[in-house]
Amino acid sequence: MNIALFPPLLGLIGMIAAFVVYMLVMKYPDGEDKVKKIGDQIHAGALAFMKTEYKYLLVFIAVLVVLAQMFLGTETAIAVVVGAACSSLAGFIGMYAATKANVRTATAAQKDGAAAALSVSFYGGSVMGLCVASLGLIGLGGLYYFYAADGGTHVHALEGFGMGASVVALFSRVGGGIFTKSADVGADLVGKIEAGIPEDDPRNPGVIADNVGDNVGDVAGMGSDIFESYCGSMIASIAIAYTMKDSGLMFLPLGLAATGLVASILGIFIVKLRSAKEPASALRSGTLLAPAIFIVMAYFLMNSMGDIPMAVLWCVISGAVGGVLIGLITEYYTGSAPVKKIAESGETGSATVMISGLSVGMQSVVIPILILATIILVSTSLASGAGVVGVYGVGIAAVGMLSTVGITMAIDAYGPVADNAGGIAEMSGMGKEVRDITDSLDELGNTTAAIGKGFAIGAAALAALAIISAYSAQVAFAYGDAFALSLTDPMVLVGMFIGICIPFLISSITMTAVGDAAFEMINEIRRQFKEISGLMEGTADPDSEKCVEIATKAALKKMMLPGIIAVAMPAVVGFGLGAIALGGMLAGGLLGCVALALFMANAGGAWDNAKKYVEKGNLGGKGSDTHSAVVVGDTVGDPFKDTSGPSMNILINVMAMVSLVISSLLPLNGILF
Amino acid sequence: MNIALFPPLLGLIGMIAAFVVYMLVMKYPDGEDKVKKIGDQIHAGALAFMKTEYKYLLVFIAVLVVLAQMFLGTETAIAVVVGAACSSLAGFIGMYAATKANVRTATAAQKDGAAAALSVSFYGGSVMGLCVASLGLIGLGGLYYFYAADGGTHVHALEGFGMGASVVALFSRVGGGIFTKSADVGADLVGKIEAGIPEDDPRNPGVIADNVGDNVGDVAGMGSDIFESYCGSMIASIAIAYTMKDSGLMFLPLGLAATGLVASILGIFIVKLRSAKEPASALRSGTLLAPAIFIVMAYFLMNSMGDIPMAVLWCVISGAVGGVLIGLITEYYTGSAPVKKIAESGETGSATVMISGLSVGMQSVVIPILILATIILVSTSLASGAGVVGVYGVGIAAVGMLSTVGITMAIDAYGPVADNAGGIAEMSGMGKEVRDITDSLDELGNTTAAIGKGFAIGAAALAALAIISAYSAQVAFAYGDAFALSLTDPMVLVGMFIGICIPFLISSITMTAVGDAAFEMINEIRRQFKEISGLMEGTADPDSEKCVEIATKAALKKMMLPGIIAVAMPAVVGFGLGAIALGGMLAGGLLGCVALALFMANAGGAWDNAKKYVEKGNLGGKGSDTHSAVVVGDTVGDPFKDTSGPSMNILINVMAMVSLVISSLLPLNGILF
Repeated sequence: MNIALFPPLLGLIGMIAAFVVYMLVMKYPDGEDKVKKIGDQIHAGALAFMKTEYKYLLVFIAVLVVLAQMFLGTETAIAVVVGAACSSLAGFIGMYAATKANVRTATAAQKDGAAAALSVSFYGGSVMGLCVASLGLIGLGGLYYFYAADGGTHVHALEGFGMGASVVALFSRVGGGIFTKSADVGADLVGKIEAGIPEDDPRNPGVIADNVGDNVGDVAGMGSDIFESYCGSMIASIAIAYTMKDSGLMFLPLGLAATGLVASILGIFIVKLRSAKEPASALRSGTLLAPAIFIVMAYFLMNSMGDIPMAVLWCVISGAVGGVLIGLITEYYTGSAPVKKIAESGETGSATVMISGLSVGMQSVVIPILILATIILVSTSLASGAGVVGVYGVGIAAVGMLSTVGITMAIDAYGPVADNAGGIAEMSGMGKEVRDITDSLDELGNTTAAIGKGFAIGAAALAALAIISAYSAQVAFAYGDAFALSLTDPMVLVGMFIGICIPFLISSITMTAVGDAAFEMINEIRRQFKEISGLMEGTADPDSEKCVEIATKAALKKMMLPGIIAVAMPAVVGFGLGAIALGGMLAGGLLGCVALALFMANAGGAWDNAKKYVEKGNLGGKGSDTHSAVVVGDTVGDPFKDTSGPSMNILINVMAMVSLVISSLLPLNGILF
Repeated sequence: MNIALFPPLLGLIGMIAAFVVYMLVMKYPDGEDKVKKIGDQIHAGALAFMKTEYKYLLVFIAVLVVLAQMFLGTETAIAVVVGAACSSLAGFIGMYAATKANVRTATAAQKDGAAAALSVSFYGGSVMGLCVASLGLIGLGGLYYFYAADGGTHVHALEGFGMGASVVALFSRVGGGIFTKSADVGADLVGKIEAGIPEDDPRNPGVIADNVGDNVGDVAGMGSDIFESYCGSMIASIAIAYTMKDSGLMFLPLGLAATGLVASILGIFIVKLRSAKEPASALRSGTLLAPAIFIVMAYFLMNSMGDIPMAVLWCVISGAVGGVLIGLITEYYTGSAPVKKIAESGETGSATVMISGLSVGMQSVVIPILILATIILVSTSLASGAGVVGVYGVGIAAVGMLSTVGITMAIDAYGPVADNAGGIAEMSGMGKEVRDITDSLDELGNTTAAIGKGFAIGAAALAALAIISAYSAQVAFAYGDAFALSLTDPMVLVGMFIGICIPFLISSITMTAVGDAAFEMINEIRRQFKEISGLMEGTADPDSEKCVEIATKAALKKMMLPGIIAVAMPAVVGFGLGAIALGGMLAGGLLGCVALALFMANAGGAWDNAKKYVEKGNLGGKGSDTHSAVVVGDTVGDPFKDTSGPSMNILINVMAMVSLVISSLLPLNGILF
């Protein structure tokens, strides 16, 4: 049998595993009456949003497909469709399962206690993890089998897959991010601060929207995000290997990812076996053992493939280890001394909370970027030492970091499921004991989410760098020595200056979108509190659907501009100023996106946890002035960490992937200058 | 007579003009009793800070001089001393005059009305403007006469001048910035928010420190900042021209700057003539006419020099026009619709003020950077079209932007003088009419300061780019084709990643410094309000000196680390990873510094003006909830716009200048990898 059939076949097995896990979730009861109703409301709201979002996406993807067909041929057009479909499907199934799991986590916590609740929520997240990995292997692996397994007749068509996937990811992240944060900020500001009712209080008209948002933003958005880094790193490595005409190195990324899926399934099994004990250690053993298993299996894979230099394995290891390290640094900045310092600065008011949080965020940029720089240095010199193009090492390091995405994503998606379960418990009045269980799971979820976010940024940065390198290699192949991306070339500088602007522009647009949508949400919630008589007394129901509608409309309306900018900029600069300026733009964009992503994600995470630290009773606890001060930090942190920050990863990957796709069409110097 | 004697001689004439202007300031009375006492306290506090600061600086500069002597020779060592001395002197004299002018502005407003007050404050600022331009010409022009007028025996020694000047600038900016904002934030938070007394109330122990801070930060710090961009752009252009062995182009930057000084003196005269009329139009006519005069004079200068291609004049014009445009964009973001939007978001609390301000700051990055990119594109193609090295065009554009620094700086430094005058009027109880005059001057000063800041960032960016280009040219001269700063070289990428970290790290350190120092200040002011009986009733005096002392100590202690990092990083990366990685680091640092400088300066300025907008009675006016919300924005904006943001300009220039100085010593690949 052709070895290229293995990845898609393993992908199918992964989908079966996902289905089995889904059935395990469904075994648990979805509660009665009020609980069931709330669960259904969240499920329906999330599904409705996704369906409308995908309609918008369909139009956008259709335009891309037509353009791809016109300028790049049928193979690329098909790949765009497959990439967009796989990414959408992964997000959709994962979110579908998550919204089934959240209510079941709450009932499990009520009936069977903490261990059962952990199992259900982790299963819920695992469906997403397995779908991301499996659909990546099925889609990309399948296309590889048809387009490239013969040595590469249509290997460049695979880039279309990356473009389709990354465009879907950008819209999901931005749309989901705007949805979730406008609902969250609106519900918190009016409910917690103005009306003085607890978080997730059923009287608050915004809480259903808030919980829907957790699913469409943190689950579906995150899934598409990781999906596109996962596939992007493979596509870039394949493209670079193709310039070396080395079919072994071309297949290796898919082989590694397939191996990683097996390791992830084993990891999920390990977590399950240990979940009866302490949840934190169960998750940690999964996080650490799966990569270890993967590395061992990768060694045997590469050995069996024969002509792969073992130095490449060290690239894989550098990526896997680097990913863990970046995650741990993220955990430090969003969980330890820095968080305490931010909370303490709340004693002198919200202004000092802002200053210290921004400063923590800025500081947190440094070490992760230095780790990335080290990975680049190590992997390129290892690769070139073994006679392989240096940047192939970077691509493989990214693949190494992302191969165990099945379990990383599972642990990451488990957090929002637990968080949602807590919301459902609160809304349906399940009592303090249930809430304590879900709170402890949620807290653990916040830590794993922080690690997951650091990991996602690191992986996306390496993937983007690999894609940019593939772009350079392809343009250099066409133009030879005339294409030198020298920093002393004014066109490169101009491109870099343009590039650094884009992340700032997109962040500004998405922050404004959240601010505007939250403003509408605030007015609606205020209106309902005022006009619906009996709402505060609990004798009348809020009009939750109206809030879901506001968030949906805002998200869909405001996600278009960032998406269009991201897709159009490479074309505008590439045709307008030429392939050289575009190379500069990608480099400037990469630096800006990585730095802003870390800055915003970590500042936001630290503010969030500073608030939680105070809410645990420190520094005066809930209701104190310090608490009000840290709540402001958390509110500002919301769009930072869940809307603008996470869009940065995808932004650079979309721009890089579009550049790679159009690279064969670009002039060396543009028409504008 | 040797033409190279003209710049230093014109510099001497400029110093005489500065002395004349200073005597005009001193003609006005410094008030009686309370007014005089407060004026003296501020003057003495500022002088005391500067003296202590310069002691620290002396040690640091001494180390640099010894190193320069050991590795680069006596000429460079002398140049470091001269550069540091000229920069310190410009800052010192300018601040000395400003602290004499502030109290005299207040008395002039009281006795002779608005026109006289404008004259005094503008004269106060003009001393700084003229000193910066004149001392630059005397110092750099003098060294040029001795070291380079013969065609360039010791032309590289001039780079030592740039290093000395930029190191002084960094310490002044960072130290002054920490001083001023710790005092400002502390005085505001306790006085305005907790004690509920007005700004600049004499009972507040922190207000003297706050007013001292305006002088050491906004006047002296800004002076050294502009001084180093002014000299840096000339040094870089000279160095690039030297690689072409073209003595006409080598002298041109100094010739243009000397011409610009004459135009500035005329501009100051024009403002004086028109100051009896409307102040805003008087300042504007100076701002616009001086560059126009300069360009005409530059045309004649270049004509008379014979062999200068006229395309170079267009580079000058592109810089001068670009500088004005960037200033206008800054004015938009810190003064128009965006400010109103931030103020309106105050209606939903401080969190939305933060979100909208951060978003305005991020958006404001885009157009100025695109203007810079356009200047780069235009000036490099004009220059290379005329047979001159492209980057020489960038250097000359920066020189063009900065040549009329005499008047730009005068208008910029006028603002803090007027602001201080208002503080003195308030503290000494001069009454509402006086305060109205100083308020209107201050408001105008805020607009001119915003324009000045945008201008400073743009000029610094071009100067840094020119210095970086000079660095590349010198390394390339030594290593030939082996030195290619290609974006596809992993070492360049690693350098770029390191480079983008540094501005984030330095911003974080300086933000934290302000936060920590403000925390100490808050505790001290709270203590005095509690322990000094009769203070709130106005029967006892606060211990203002204690507050000055706290700010001084904090500033001096916390300015060391950023200074050391900025000077050491080029050496560490240059020797550790090599000249190629250092080139990448400078590029990454440039992008990060420019983007963060614009982001922080404009967000801070917009928050400041949003607060002022509400305080004028809009949206509920002073004392409303909206007001409390926008005060938070203003407090966060303080370190953004006056500490961390302005340090960014100098940071990249220090790193670039140190790299240029050590370029001849660097290995191509470092010892570490």
